[in-house]
Amino acid sequence: MKKLNKDHSKLKIIPLGGLEQIGMNITAFEYEDSIIVVDCGLAFPEDDMLGIDLCIPDVSYLKDNIDKVKGFIITHGHEDHIGALPYVLKEVNAPIYATKLTIGLIDRKLEEHGLLKCVRRKVIKHGQSINLGAFRIEFIKTNHSIADASALAIYSPAGIVVHTGDFKVDYTPVFGDAIDLQRFGEIGKKGVLALMCDSTNAEREGFTRSERTIGKVFDTLFGEHKRNRIIIATFASNVDRVQQIINSAEKYGRKVVVEGRSMVNVIETATELGYIKITDNTLISVDEIKNYPDEKLVIVTTGSQGESMAALSRMAMNMHKKVTIKPNDVIIFSSNPIPGNEKSVSRIIDELEEKGAEVIFQDAHVSGHACREEIKLIYSLVKPKYSIPAHGEYRHRHAQATIAEELGYDHDHILMLHSGDVLEIDDDGAKVAKHVPTGAIYVDGLGVGDVGNIVLRDRQHLAEDGIVIIVLTMQRGTGQVLAGPDIVSRGFVYVRESDALLEDSTEILQDQMDELSEKGITDWSKIKSTLRDSLSDYLWKKTKRRPMILPIIMEV
Amino acid sequence: MKKLNKDHSKLKIIPLGGLEQIGMNITAFEYEDSIIVVDCGLAFPEDDMLGIDLCIPDVSYLKDNIDKVKGFIITHGHEDHIGALPYVLKEVNAPIYATKLTIGLIDRKLEEHGLLKCVRRKVIKHGQSINLGAFRIEFIKTNHSIADASALAIYSPAGIVVHTGDFKVDYTPVFGDAIDLQRFGEIGKKGVLALMCDSTNAEREGFTRSERTIGKVFDTLFGEHKRNRIIIATFASNVDRVQQIINSAEKYGRKVVVEGRSMVNVIETATELGYIKITDNTLISVDEIKNYPDEKLVIVTTGSQGESMAALSRMAMNMHKKVTIKPNDVIIFSSNPIPGNEKSVSRIIDELEEKGAEVIFQDAHVSGHACREEIKLIYSLVKPKYSIPAHGEYRHRHAQATIAEELGYDHDHILMLHSGDVLEIDDDGAKVAKHVPTGAIYVDGLGVGDVGNIVLRDRQHLAEDGIVIIVLTMQRGTGQVLAGPDIVSRGFVYVRESDALLEDSTEILQDQMDELSEKGITDWSKIKSTLRDSLSDYLWKKTKRRPMILPIIMEV
Repeated sequence: MKKLNKDHSKLKIIPLGGLEQIGMNITAFEYEDSIIVVDCGLAFPEDDMLGIDLCIPDVSYLKDNIDKVKGFIITHGHEDHIGALPYVLKEVNAPIYATKLTIGLIDRKLEEHGLLKCVRRKVIKHGQSINLGAFRIEFIKTNHSIADASALAIYSPAGIVVHTGDFKVDYTPVFGDAIDLQRFGEIGKKGVLALMCDSTNAEREGFTRSERTIGKVFDTLFGEHKRNRIIIATFASNVDRVQQIINSAEKYGRKVVVEGRSMVNVIETATELGYIKITDNTLISVDEIKNYPDEKLVIVTTGSQGESMAALSRMAMNMHKKVTIKPNDVIIFSSNPIPGNEKSVSRIIDELEEKGAEVIFQDAHVSGHACREEIKLIYSLVKPKYSIPAHGEYRHRHAQATIAEELGYDHDHILMLHSGDVLEIDDDGAKVAKHVPTGAIYVDGLGVGDVGNIVLRDRQHLAEDGIVIIVLTMQRGTGQVLAGPDIVSRGFVYVRESDALLEDSTEILQDQMDELSEKGITDWSKIKSTLRDSLSDYLWKKTKRRPMILPIIMEV
Repeated sequence: MKKLNKDHSKLKIIPLGGLEQIGMNITAFEYEDSIIVVDCGLAFPEDDMLGIDLCIPDVSYLKDNIDKVKGFIITHGHEDHIGALPYVLKEVNAPIYATKLTIGLIDRKLEEHGLLKCVRRKVIKHGQSINLGAFRIEFIKTNHSIADASALAIYSPAGIVVHTGDFKVDYTPVFGDAIDLQRFGEIGKKGVLALMCDSTNAEREGFTRSERTIGKVFDTLFGEHKRNRIIIATFASNVDRVQQIINSAEKYGRKVVVEGRSMVNVIETATELGYIKITDNTLISVDEIKNYPDEKLVIVTTGSQGESMAALSRMAMNMHKKVTIKPNDVIIFSSNPIPGNEKSVSRIIDELEEKGAEVIFQDAHVSGHACREEIKLIYSLVKPKYSIPAHGEYRHRHAQATIAEELGYDHDHILMLHSGDVLEIDDDGAKVAKHVPTGAIYVDGLGVGDVGNIVLRDRQHLAEDGIVIIVLTMQRGTGQVLAGPDIVSRGFVYVRESDALLEDSTEILQDQMDELSEKGITDWSKIKSTLRDSLSDYLWKKTKRRPMILPIIMEV
């Protein structure tokens, strides 16, 4: 490895998200007065984040260093890499750099949030570099489940970091070139300080198959089902997958309907920008379905994850306005369930099969992420001094660490970071020097960050056993009870069948009030806690449930 | 097929659960004045059944025909086959017939519910038959992931039904004999009217491996990790699995600790009844761990599904009083995640690996259910006239239907039932004659059935966006407002940071009250709906959220 000039500061690598989960990818690179931010994604809420629409990263560190931030570098157009941009840009406005399709998808997002006019975007080609402060950033062609994905070579005075983005090695991609392995090798030759490599599939042996293999599967399936209507569910953003469906449709003389808002959006953008090729007249609108017989139709749709509001779910549940599932339909899931979605997907399959449709859910999908042998290939081309497994839960990153170990890296040169770690690194060494605040900020409707842990805890409590409200009106001054205590409950028991329980509860509260009154206690907080505790004890004894109990006192 | 005497009634087969999901298995067989009930299981709640502990089947049909019910026949001791017994027996008390271990596990349940003295249980051996009313029921030895599982041959004047229970074909089981294939063949020779066969794995090609193969995996893993403490998570009820762990432990000179309440219970029962063989001194208590070095210990534990309160989860989260995870630990998941549990399992793996433990989660489990080739084997021995795919979601039962088709059954002879269908069947034909009420009854704490869809809908609403309560005190008679309207919220927004929103809300309510008062409106329901609607509109406009809004009026 080439020795670097000693007269430099250290490079700081600060992951602000993406290391505890799949999602919310964002990493800051800081060198003296320059910060660049790689990706800016959202995460979808966990099951216990009740009512939350999405999570965005806490970027306090960027806000505190706003003058240093030179720009956002986006590796590709998936939600977990671009989804937080509209929120973060409102706080930290800096130019965005990405490839053409990625910028196209970002533009749609910015437009929705009314940000198109106030944010600079610049399209970068693979092989091109940009200079931002102390950094030079080179975009390297990779393959992934969305077109135009990039790895980055980040040149700093303290050394080069290669960041793979999300990638796989596809020697025969559907659109454009294969991953630029030569360039990985060339940069490796220069001497790379650290490699931040996608860990998503690091637990899986072997290689991920080429996207092109799915085209052959579609051809076979189309050939086997010449008399059926074909419905294919896949990821809205997988432009190459849709291209292959279109290819098979054209080969077999079928018209293609694209259904589901997010997919329509992506395909529109991809078509405008030239990432998808469709013969005139192949694409028809959902309203034209009635003009064609079943065997002349393919419907490409969202909902492959069983999302309850997506087009396929609505078809399965007989809630879609334009498409009704029939016994002659063949539904192909060109997807795997993302962990956590298995049950919803299963439910949709049940519904579809119960309506007589044939469901095919095997062999019609390949992953967009590199397996163990591909990760080894990248390490062997880049030959970094340090390994920083990125993009994944601990188990996935740990699996990549075991690959690095197999390749001869010792423990000191494999850096398992946490979000918020400030890694100071150069040729002389690497250490986590300090921590900055990070975390998920919840977006619920229009609210960003107004639902925090207290509100969530309340929602979890309400969800578990409902609420019992005690209302009471007292005379100002005397503390005499004028009305109540009365009880109102929601989500606790079916009121009509629980008269006795609720009457007894009211009686207990009445007794408590009498006792308090005898003792001359008029302090509201004392009254509230006495009522809450006595009712809570009684309901637990009777039902083994702990509803939220909320005493409200009014004064007249 | 042998012709039966024409002078008979039809047999009614009435599944009361188990056909829409894995769980809540219960089927009634009725012939004239006799009803027998096969299995009586619970289902674990779906994600949207907030706060529900478990679901039991609606047995109104049995209650309405209580005089006919001759007994419960239980095929094996899993929760989805025995779990509802304590609840159902309180309504329909009839004797229970099952094999020894199954009765042992049922007894523990009845004891917990104080039912031991009032319910008759009878242990039946494999090969033995019992006569109940018009029925004779023969217990046939099978293999499954719990010992002592049975298939049933149900002899009625209208014909023989073979019910497999949950089964696999294990030629080399760990305990006892292989499945009694000869007997299946013999009964098949007599002429079988219908086969109700386990569909759980009907989508999977080939054969399920023998339980014994896992013993070899344990031996290998024990041999490879001679210096580590070994922790193995598996299903509490898989007695043979625990036996194999004990075997490997004894071979390698390790002591065994069983941890987790449900597993301790099952192992106690299995040991008492002779279903598990342990050399004296192999088993030690969790308190004795400190007396042994790591390499002399195996901890067998619950929590293989990532259940948050199970022993393994508590260990992973540093919340277990006696066991702390250390870098020298090897944790083996001897289980697969049940659909829906993938994310919780993944979270536990993250925690364990982050604490430095090695996690092994592949190849240390086999299923207890028959794959496609085994199902074909049973069909080919039993040669039923009708196929009634049982035990599974529609997709699993549909997969079994495709097996029956492959074997030459036509559509008329494959009966896809729904819970509640009353199938009338004999040698002359089969048809669903009517439907009886079925469904899941929710158990929440001590309450059975007091949480229904209205309460659940409220919980879902509360979970999504919380609650906003409007309180108001009015003068009786005049309708004059004496106090309020005030607002109290929970689970909606973080109150301290939403002063303006809540103040504006109160103002809007105040304006509405003024307007109502001017119009002389004092009708409570009108006041309530006006307040609810105006606040709802305002909050939606401001937040795009729809909390539950609950107006409460007090009168003095």
